[in-house]
Amino acid sequence: MLKPAHLIDTKDLTKQEVEEILERAWFWEKNREKQLMPFAGRFAANLFFEPSTRTRFSFEVAEKKLGFHVLNFSENHSSAVKGESLYDTVKTLVSLGVEVITIRHRDPEAILELVERNPGCSIVNAGAGALAHPTQSLLDLYTIKKHFGELAGLQVAIVGDLAHSRVVRSNLWSMQKFGIQVILSGPPEMRDPELERLAPYVPFEEAIETADVVMMLRVQLERHESKLFTSAEQYNQAYGLTLERAKRMKPGAIIMHPGPFNRGVEIVDELVEDSRSKIFEQKANGVFVRMAVLEKVLQGGTERENIVEKWASIG
Amino acid sequence: MLKPAHLIDTKDLTKQEVEEILERAWFWEKNREKQLMPFAGRFAANLFFEPSTRTRFSFEVAEKKLGFHVLNFSENHSSAVKGESLYDTVKTLVSLGVEVITIRHRDPEAILELVERNPGCSIVNAGAGALAHPTQSLLDLYTIKKHFGELAGLQVAIVGDLAHSRVVRSNLWSMQKFGIQVILSGPPEMRDPELERLAPYVPFEEAIETADVVMMLRVQLERHESKLFTSAEQYNQAYGLTLERAKRMKPGAIIMHPGPFNRGVEIVDELVEDSRSKIFEQKANGVFVRMAVLEKVLQGGTERENIVEKWASIG
Amino acid sequence: MLKPAHLIDTKDLTKQEVEEILERAWFWEKNREKQLMPFAGRFAANLFFEPSTRTRFSFEVAEKKLGFHVLNFSENHSSAVKGESLYDTVKTLVSLGVEVITIRHRDPEAILELVERNPGCSIVNAGAGALAHPTQSLLDLYTIKKHFGELAGLQVAIVGDLAHSRVVRSNLWSMQKFGIQVILSGPPEMRDPELERLAPYVPFEEAIETADVVMMLRVQLERHESKLFTSAEQYNQAYGLTLERAKRMKPGAIIMHPGPFNRGVEIVDELVEDSRSKIFEQKANGVFVRMAVLEKVLQGGTERENIVEKWASIG
Repeated sequence: MLKPAHLIDTKDLTKQEVEEILERAWFWEKNREKQLMPFAGRFAANLFFEPSTRTRFSFEVAEKKLGFHVLNFSENHSSAVKGESLYDTVKTLVSLGVEVITIRHRDPEAILELVERNPGCSIVNAGAGALAHPTQSLLDLYTIKKHFGELAGLQVAIVGDLAHSRVVRSNLWSMQKFGIQVILSGPPEMRDPELERLAPYVPFEEAIETADVVMMLRVQLERHESKLFTSAEQYNQAYGLTLERAKRMKPGAIIMHPGPFNRGVEIVDELVEDSRSKIFEQKANGVFVRMAVLEKVLQGGTERENIVEKWASIG
Repeated sequence: MLKPAHLIDTKDLTKQEVEEILERAWFWEKNREKQLMPFAGRFAANLFFEPSTRTRFSFEVAEKKLGFHVLNFSENHSSAVKGESLYDTVKTLVSLGVEVITIRHRDPEAILELVERNPGCSIVNAGAGALAHPTQSLLDLYTIKKHFGELAGLQVAIVGDLAHSRVVRSNLWSMQKFGIQVILSGPPEMRDPELERLAPYVPFEEAIETADVVMMLRVQLERHESKLFTSAEQYNQAYGLTLERAKRMKPGAIIMHPGPFNRGVEIVDELVEDSRSKIFEQKANGVFVRMAVLEKVLQGGTERENIVEKWASIG
Repeated sequence: MLKPAHLIDTKDLTKQEVEEILERAWFWEKNREKQLMPFAGRFAANLFFEPSTRTRFSFEVAEKKLGFHVLNFSENHSSAVKGESLYDTVKTLVSLGVEVITIRHRDPEAILELVERNPGCSIVNAGAGALAHPTQSLLDLYTIKKHFGELAGLQVAIVGDLAHSRVVRSNLWSMQKFGIQVILSGPPEMRDPELERLAPYVPFEEAIETADVVMMLRVQLERHESKLFTSAEQYNQAYGLTLERAKRMKPGAIIMHPGPFNRGVEIVDELVEDSRSKIFEQKANGVFVRMAVLEKVLQGGTERENIVEKWASIG
């Protein structure tokens, strides 16, 4: 029996492992019309303790394209299922024959504790609180690489609600590993001092003009108690990607957004499907990247023991 | 890339297209034991913003028999998902590889707006408010044709809550196209003047005796504020299909109901599975008709461009 | 058309039928890596009117391993769906092509009434109120047989909330049929006089020392109005399986639990995955036993008419 590997965060991956995943995703994209199904008849499960239909569907499509039977579990009451209870649920699924489980959970500690206890299957983090969202980061990398060819030397501006985004952390790790210069921007009230030890904070109007990738983050105005912005329009005017700002973007620069996006808040309607926007292509790419990730964690073990150890390491 | 076709309402179909669907449904019924699965490995999604387990299951079975992987999405909070948001959800599914989506929505405008924006996949209306339910109408036609052989010249009485039924509108269009004489009946308080410009309103006791098909509609007494009927028994006595009334039906006439039915309200218990009743056969037929519809919208395009245009037309 | 067979409770099975199921489960366990899928392309449905994700997943895995397409229906509002309504829902699924339906329902009468009305498909009881849970009992037998080889002469102690457990009843029938001596134990306030007409009640400290199988039942302290135990610790000390008590178990004796278990209440944390514990193996075995059960009810009919009659008998 191979020891199962996991994907908890991008920082557990070496540069070479990320490259292998991106290359394999490209294999799946090229062969997307073929019914290869290397895992036909085997079982995967999606445990979503926080609702996210779109991410769950992306994993479900990836799993089914790989040939898996899929078990779906969704629940809103996150806090209840922690510690013993999450472990017992996962261990039950393993007993039923499930080999890989994707988990979305509000509390990042829940997934870490689970993996530490060795539940006997591969775990893929599908979004943990505001901490990590590794498959989103990998698909972002894949999307950028497909467009620019080379990653090193690019500048990516991540703009918006930095404090509440799980994508920023995962992206900082993986992008910097590839020589991408990440800059942060957005309303001062949504800054996160911890992140700024890793990447510089830059005024929005400046970031717009220097970045090769303008990555807008979802803003949930209702989350901010201070009520700095009294309306979507007000936010959009100050920190949204408007037509005027898009005009000032570098030639060849692209627009990205991890979704779900708010039209008219962090990005104006007209730009969502603009020729520079990769927003829906990101979703398409996500399927191929997740196929590669699922495949990789399931191949963990034997001569890859060292890698596996590290994949499982969650410090 | 073919331009995707849609099925929004029966009135968008020519007589020939309806005939093709009914003929193809017959093909699927004859071959129901075979695992043909022409769409193996491809993706369909059911987006139900109004709960309807039975209709969703009917589409899910049809899709799986065609070989599709199926993604299911159900939500009760209809009003929230409209306009941009519905479009973005659909567009996300398309990005994931979904080729056909069935939608049930309380607001008929939602589906029309969606199709106008060309989301990049085929849309099948699975019930839109009180406006249209085209696959229900097609399976009604199929059921009648299987029983009588010839459609032209038959009389169909549609009886009950005309004002709230989405089936009546779709059926009026398709039945009259085939030379069926539709008559309307039921409590005066549930009449709909708009419908009566298209078909005559006839007293119930008369309709029972002349119709070849007595189609009873679901009555939701709680929906009617005037509280005309104080009990199910009272409604049943005045406007339900009772044993006494069934005795006065024409020889060879049949009973239909789009479901879900209320035993003891619009139809007495004993008649639901009477030999004249096609109620459960309608459900069986629904699978084959939906297979034919899904297949047809997915074949839209190329030399069928004109038809496609019309299928997509929603005026 | 064969007459469909059902599995309503273990008491409807002959000893030989149980043996056939256990033997066939062993066949499925041995061949668990193969994709045999004898029911490929056919339809099964799980109707759960009481939430039980784990049991539903067990059936879903069993069904998918047999090749079935699976339709899932879950609802919390059990009482609403009874009598006509449950029958009509099932009959609709049958019309769509579903051949076997598993049902969990709070009210045991609901399943009995349904089967009496011959809905046209096989029904498997997936847990009915506090009355019966036949597949749990069969997987318990299978687990014991795999460990001990011979069933006759073993002693099984069932310990805990006897009054509220649906497993005890199903197990008493099937275990005694195989010459297993069942003894009951637990808090006096959770005794059930009806059960004690079938098996002796024994003090807990004594049962621990004589039983070959110590089967702990889930205790829901909040269910007991008398509030006999003011805390989980108090219950655990008086009637839980503690390390001290486990030390006094017979050599070779095993620990079982139908789940879901409460760590620290009826069983201490350290024993759940103790080498004597079969708790997660029970879940693995459940898949193979359920595969055998689904297969058996679907083969009902023709020359097996007598057996079928009895399977369907629900007195």
